[in-house]
Amino acid sequence: MTGCLTIAGLGPGSPDQITPAVEQAIAAATDVVGYIPYVARIAPRDELVLHPSDNRVEADRARHALDMAAAGRRVLVVSSGDPGVFAMAAAVYEVLETDPARWQDVDITVLPGVTAMLAAAARVGAPLGHDFCVINLSDNLKPWALIEQRLQLALQADFAMAFYNPRSKSRPEGFEKTMQILKSCGEGKRPVIFARAVSTPDESTPPAPPKKRGRFKVIKKRR
Amino acid sequence: MTGCLTIAGLGPGSPDQITPAVEQAIAAATDVVGYIPYVARIAPRDELVLHPSDNRVEADRARHALDMAAAGRRVLVVSSGDPGVFAMAAAVYEVLETDPARWQDVDITVLPGVTAMLAAAARVGAPLGHDFCVINLSDNLKPWALIEQRLQLALQADFAMAFYNPRSKSRPEGFEKTMQILKSCGEGKRPVIFARAVSTPDESTPPAPPKKRGRFKVIKKRR
Repeated sequence: MTGCLTIAGLGPGSPDQITPAVEQAIAAATDVVGYIPYVARIAPRDELVLHPSDNRVEADRARHALDMAAAGRRVLVVSSGDPGVFAMAAAVYEVLETDPARWQDVDITVLPGVTAMLAAAARVGAPLGHDFCVINLSDNLKPWALIEQRLQLALQADFAMAFYNPRSKSRPEGFEKTMQILKSCGEGKRPVIFARAVSTPDESTPPAPPKKRGRFKVIKKRR
Repeated sequence: MTGCLTIAGLGPGSPDQITPAVEQAIAAATDVVGYIPYVARIAPRDELVLHPSDNRVEADRARHALDMAAAGRRVLVVSSGDPGVFAMAAAVYEVLETDPARWQDVDITVLPGVTAMLAAAARVGAPLGHDFCVINLSDNLKPWALIEQRLQLALQADFAMAFYNPRSKSRPEGFEKTMQILKSCGEGKRPVIFARAVSTPDESTPPAPPKKRGRFKVIKKRR
């Protein structure tokens, strides 16, 4: 018997930002797989097996989830925000492509969620009400030079910009370089908003800036 | 007495993609304001006044909503998807800036939703799992030349791309030009996904394409 795999977004953090479609998938699951703090958002119950795992093991986690589904379990992979934005949907499909025959009978569904930039933007007005781009500032999976090139082209295009994973202890430099690039078009010309854990008790967002649309950056710190 | 104004996203179309936070705001409202098909998604009830209005009157609609809130009503402005992405949040803040004193006591909240590109992406894998940009192809509010420049820069940056409002009867040319620009980097190099009314009974999305991440375009037709 083949089970199913659902890849779901838990939204920015508050329970009232989780869609009913995702709540139903949580209720139907036999197994929940994901990064430790995201699995911690799932209420334990009898006969639900939680499989939290550490950061940076996305491919292993995806393979484990696919294998459990192939063995007949109803597996839920959880991401914060939306699973398609710098999150687990890409990891699952990348692993799937390495051996499509092995998991060919697994039924896969992706359930969208409110990604962090939308929750952060909502706190301060309408900073993304204008053409925008979304860049993952982590250089774990791509060279920094590519990120820098994208930043320069995005400035030329006058996109509003949303950044995910702006800084970590192991890579503080990229964030500073990003700030320098943004300042290069004129001090104060591109207001920057920092948002963390929006909609949770740990939320930090700044006092609301002048409420204008366009040209903002929304920076989402990884929780 | 001053009321309040909530600007909420109804998600892509299905009731099970509306967040509980938005459902609570619907339940608390005295007045609902928005584009006709979006207001039609709100169940009528006693003492709830629905104010549907036509397309292209966003500023009038925003002013009306702000004035009702200033007069003590609990006003809900509804958008499809997320209100911050090419939707009513920008219109409300733009109108607010024209006369801040008039509405200074109105308490404004923006509630995010699942924007169309996330719902469309979820149907086909993880096309936005890579740095991406989001462009409104309507040239009602900006010159076509600016859109074209952004498309060219986005190609140079190798962004995945999501397009909103790709075509209307009054402006068929922009869509054709966009397809030409995308083809300029090589036939078949950048697969394009068309999605319409995702999660509703009128949904049209294509058979799932090869499930790869990156380089996709997601095009969301206005419903």
